[in-house]
Amino acid sequence: MSELKNDRFLRALNREPLDRTPCWIMRQAGRYLPEYRASRARAGSFLDLCKNADFACEVTLQPLERFPLDAAILFSDILTIPDAMGLGLYFSEGEGPKFERPLRSAAAIANLGVPDPEDELGYVMNAVRTIRTALDGRVPLIGFSGSPWTLATYMLEGGSSKTFGHSKGLLYSDPVSAHKLLDTLAQSVTSYLNAQVAAGAQALMIFDTWGGVLTPAAYREFSLNYMQQIVDGLTREADGRRVPVMLFTKGAGERLADMAKCGADGLGVDWTTDLSRARELVQDKVALQGNLDPGVLYGSAETVEQEVQRVLASYGHGTGHIFNLGHGVTPDVSPENVGAAIAAVQKFSPAYHQS
Amino acid sequence: MSELKNDRFLRALNREPLDRTPCWIMRQAGRYLPEYRASRARAGSFLDLCKNADFACEVTLQPLERFPLDAAILFSDILTIPDAMGLGLYFSEGEGPKFERPLRSAAAIANLGVPDPEDELGYVMNAVRTIRTALDGRVPLIGFSGSPWTLATYMLEGGSSKTFGHSKGLLYSDPVSAHKLLDTLAQSVTSYLNAQVAAGAQALMIFDTWGGVLTPAAYREFSLNYMQQIVDGLTREADGRRVPVMLFTKGAGERLADMAKCGADGLGVDWTTDLSRARELVQDKVALQGNLDPGVLYGSAETVEQEVQRVLASYGHGTGHIFNLGHGVTPDVSPENVGAAIAAVQKFSPAYHQS
Repeated sequence: MSELKNDRFLRALNREPLDRTPCWIMRQAGRYLPEYRASRARAGSFLDLCKNADFACEVTLQPLERFPLDAAILFSDILTIPDAMGLGLYFSEGEGPKFERPLRSAAAIANLGVPDPEDELGYVMNAVRTIRTALDGRVPLIGFSGSPWTLATYMLEGGSSKTFGHSKGLLYSDPVSAHKLLDTLAQSVTSYLNAQVAAGAQALMIFDTWGGVLTPAAYREFSLNYMQQIVDGLTREADGRRVPVMLFTKGAGERLADMAKCGADGLGVDWTTDLSRARELVQDKVALQGNLDPGVLYGSAETVEQEVQRVLASYGHGTGHIFNLGHGVTPDVSPENVGAAIAAVQKFSPAYHQS
Repeated sequence: MSELKNDRFLRALNREPLDRTPCWIMRQAGRYLPEYRASRARAGSFLDLCKNADFACEVTLQPLERFPLDAAILFSDILTIPDAMGLGLYFSEGEGPKFERPLRSAAAIANLGVPDPEDELGYVMNAVRTIRTALDGRVPLIGFSGSPWTLATYMLEGGSSKTFGHSKGLLYSDPVSAHKLLDTLAQSVTSYLNAQVAAGAQALMIFDTWGGVLTPAAYREFSLNYMQQIVDGLTREADGRRVPVMLFTKGAGERLADMAKCGADGLGVDWTTDLSRARELVQDKVALQGNLDPGVLYGSAETVEQEVQRVLASYGHGTGHIFNLGHGVTPDVSPENVGAAIAAVQKFSPAYHQS
């Protein structure tokens, strides 16, 4: 493998000194880019993009051609594991991900197996290998998965939900089955992420999109516990280098304090918590990633620059900050505003790294 | 007017000693009740229910017949003010509220007037008077409105939104027009709520459903500031009694500390912040209302009882707590579980009020 030419992202996760704050953007390969829309039109559907290693590689690299980003992220979906378990993932236009066969009984939960990552999820590992080779050491490649709780909500609801009636119904009427499901998912995510590292992923991220809809107590019991189980089981070194892992719970708020104790190297922070407060909560135990409101990108380029400065100032001086949005970039913003945000990080962040 | 027979709710907001924790449920008059569905079928649409004082009164009283609740709340919608401003409110099945004529220009914002509450919103005042008479002093009547920021999001987006692209676009590209809109809305809400008090409302609540989607700084500037302006302008006494006001920002989290300083008597707390933490944040400046996860009502009756006990224990000893859900009751839960929650408050809360 080629030597890594830009390791700012990995060094920030290790809280080592840097020249400036590294930056990548959640969903940086996505619909806001015309070149992505063109690739997708050629590939067919979103899942066709994910399941073909050449297409997945093509779109993964597109934002790196446009912007001076410090990391690439595997182009894939958070719901590949339940799909491999046989639930039948599909995307309905405007309604997001859905499952043909949602989980609706304790028996169905008991029957779930742990997918073999090189078999049922071999297309993901092919994409990781293809992208890693194409990157040629330019920036590190991030692998990822959904968190057990987040996967469980989609599996139980059959898609997105406003009320989480089926998933909270399970937690609050049959917690034994809920724990069985989450344990099977934690085992599956561990083996899936370890296979991504074996295939070439240089850092890992677990997306807990729906952890924030739980009470603080239910979050610890049904979401954080299982992310902890995964972190404990991950391969943490490859090519003689540490493979850092990051957790992102949307709406984490004060939960960041507990999250910082589970052995992860970094935490994603959404825009509803100031990084200054997040830094107090985690007490320099972990690096922090975030947290520009994706909604700022609907504003003017001048405001984008001001709000980036506000994010940098909120984290303050020193290493351990990775600039990102507080959630994925939305499809209807202009690539120019995304570029303005990234340029502002380049321009204003060095001042926070002078000793 | 008849003397008030049950004033626990008002006394809790004043943090006076009580025998037990008062309780009401957000959206207690709603689709989870078969008698509500029958009234609505007779009335026609949801808006027909709101705009006919006899129907609005009928459904307001239904949950009081079933459950030992300590407050009634006006049956109405949070979007009556923008409707009175001429935006054309309608409800599309399964998609929630929409406006026929969303605000899409600075000129449209500049042209908005403050509605006369006894004229364009006279149907609401008729409902307040009818309900207050029918209650006959049984429990106090809560009047309410949406917050300026929350109303603005619906007016700008034309309905619900996942990204808040139009509303955040305005904040971050034309803050002058955003402030103009929010100021017009704050004036309108103030006059609307004062008219509700004149018509018989004995307490007021401002629902800031979407304040939590803003950054902490944008929340202070664009949401809390305007709720403060309203609180400053409200009639605070009627019939020789204080008219308390409560603010509820969904996803408030740490913002509760700032909210407690704006002169409100109570704050609603959603289920993602423990009441013990909320109490630390507000330092006994205000009463707290909440905060059972509405999702618990999808569980078993035993779990409902346990989770109610957890909420009561989290607030702890002393007055100043009003039991409620952390958000509105969802349409597909069983009335029996709602009853189990209310019964558990009656059973377990007296222990927290012994001196």
